[in-house]
Amino acid sequence: MQIKVDGKTEDIKSLWREGSLVKMVDQRKLPHSFEIITLNNHMETAWAIKEMVTRGAGAIGNAAGFGMAQAAIEAENKSIEEFTEYLNEAAETIRQTRPTAANLFKAVDRCLEAANWGSVSVRVENVVKAADQIFKDDLKASEEIAKAGSRLIKDGFKILTHCNAGALAYIDHGTALAPIRQAVKEGKDVFIWVDETRPRGQGARITAWELEQEGIPYALIADNAAGYFMQTGEVDMVIVGADRIAVNGDVANKIGTYEKAVVAFENKIPFWVAAPGMTFDLN
Amino acid sequence: MQIKVDGKTEDIKSLWREGSLVKMVDQRKLPHSFEIITLNNHMETAWAIKEMVTRGAGAIGNAAGFGMAQAAIEAENKSIEEFTEYLNEAAETIRQTRPTAANLFKAVDRCLEAANWGSVSVRVENVVKAADQIFKDDLKASEEIAKAGSRLIKDGFKILTHCNAGALAYIDHGTALAPIRQAVKEGKDVFIWVDETRPRGQGARITAWELEQEGIPYALIADNAAGYFMQTGEVDMVIVGADRIAVNGDVANKIGTYEKAVVAFENKIPFWVAAPGMTFDLN
Repeated sequence: MQIKVDGKTEDIKSLWREGSLVKMVDQRKLPHSFEIITLNNHMETAWAIKEMVTRGAGAIGNAAGFGMAQAAIEAENKSIEEFTEYLNEAAETIRQTRPTAANLFKAVDRCLEAANWGSVSVRVENVVKAADQIFKDDLKASEEIAKAGSRLIKDGFKILTHCNAGALAYIDHGTALAPIRQAVKEGKDVFIWVDETRPRGQGARITAWELEQEGIPYALIADNAAGYFMQTGEVDMVIVGADRIAVNGDVANKIGTYEKAVVAFENKIPFWVAAPGMTFDLN
Repeated sequence: MQIKVDGKTEDIKSLWREGSLVKMVDQRKLPHSFEIITLNNHMETAWAIKEMVTRGAGAIGNAAGFGMAQAAIEAENKSIEEFTEYLNEAAETIRQTRPTAANLFKAVDRCLEAANWGSVSVRVENVVKAADQIFKDDLKASEEIAKAGSRLIKDGFKILTHCNAGALAYIDHGTALAPIRQAVKEGKDVFIWVDETRPRGQGARITAWELEQEGIPYALIADNAAGYFMQTGEVDMVIVGADRIAVNGDVANKIGTYEKAVVAFENKIPFWVAAPGMTFDLN
């Protein structure tokens, strides 16, 4: 994601690991100020997830994985029994931050599985590797969403999006915003209608900020106005993200997504959900 | 409309005439404070229309009529030529306050027509009578809407409304809220879902305040949430007002009304527009 800091453009991710430290964009401060916060141990990372310092299904999953990696590093000098107990407690702490986040539970479980064989130092290494792999997998998924989605976007398209499914909700690129970024990269002209997304205003606060940073043209509109622009032919497609997708194809996403989908259907406007495989709930 | 002032319940109208004075609820101050403002002449009344001290199609039409009555009274000692010139200038001043308000233009024209015969004192009397008649007609229309609409409301109904089409947007009772008030008066239990109505929030600021005053149970919801409640069977009917209704039945109303109508249709929920005859535009 491109952002402008002190007049220069930098390429950043929404969160990352530096040894035993986790760093992330403090999303509570946006759009008023852009700050990177450093979390020194797994307790601080758990706090950051709970306090919505980071948000978005993908970003939360990665933060959980990094928190597990921190816990493993913190316990590297313990006995196997103590290490296991410490890691299980950390898992419980992290699970309790966001009881509804599917990606978080998957990330914690994947890290715990990586810790069930070998010496303590091997276990530490494996947990850290597992956390880093979640990060790499998610990054790759968003790049694939970007390429697959961009093929649906024609030059000159006006696209409506609801809530934030951008780079900040993921590692980079985003889900709903990934195809848009890719289309712009490929030289296509696009224009984005950004729903405010009341009551918390993630569209107004975060999606608008991301697009502004990358210089992608957009207009922020009241949620109520989306139907008007669909009806008057000003929307060529709708792209949203997803919190969870059921096996039958039902999509759970931010309040208001259903309304936009119904109105898009009424107006014969293609409605796309951009999400990685991890968002599917096969149970 | 019932309102609570200093612990007592009073029955008031949104605006009225007292001799050469016009009084109205200052809607700019709601819901934080309830104040009645006095407008001493037609210039002040025109200012009040322009500054949205009063708002809503019906209330604006009545304010325009009262402004014309004030202008006629102000010119009662002039010659017929001077009187006519003064009244025409007042009409122009009032017309320019809200160039899109159909009721306002109709009210001004009705008062001008009342001034085209007889002595100056007869003309003054006729203009004042015409303004008072608009007031009486609108009051009667809202009472009729209340009775006709209440027949559609069953005991226990949960009703969604969008924007404010309550007593404050009219003289009393309102349009969309009139049937609801009447149903409550007849002893029916109702529950109202109040859309915020972004970007200006007339639902949040005004409809919620009116219902609160009358003790009618309601919940204020983000505009985005209306579809969710429709989909989950929590909405038995939708009632909204109208800014203008075309001969073919097309309704112009606050942004977002179209979305609610489409989602109601998708969910087979009755969608009613409550409006007086004056709102029909036969051109």
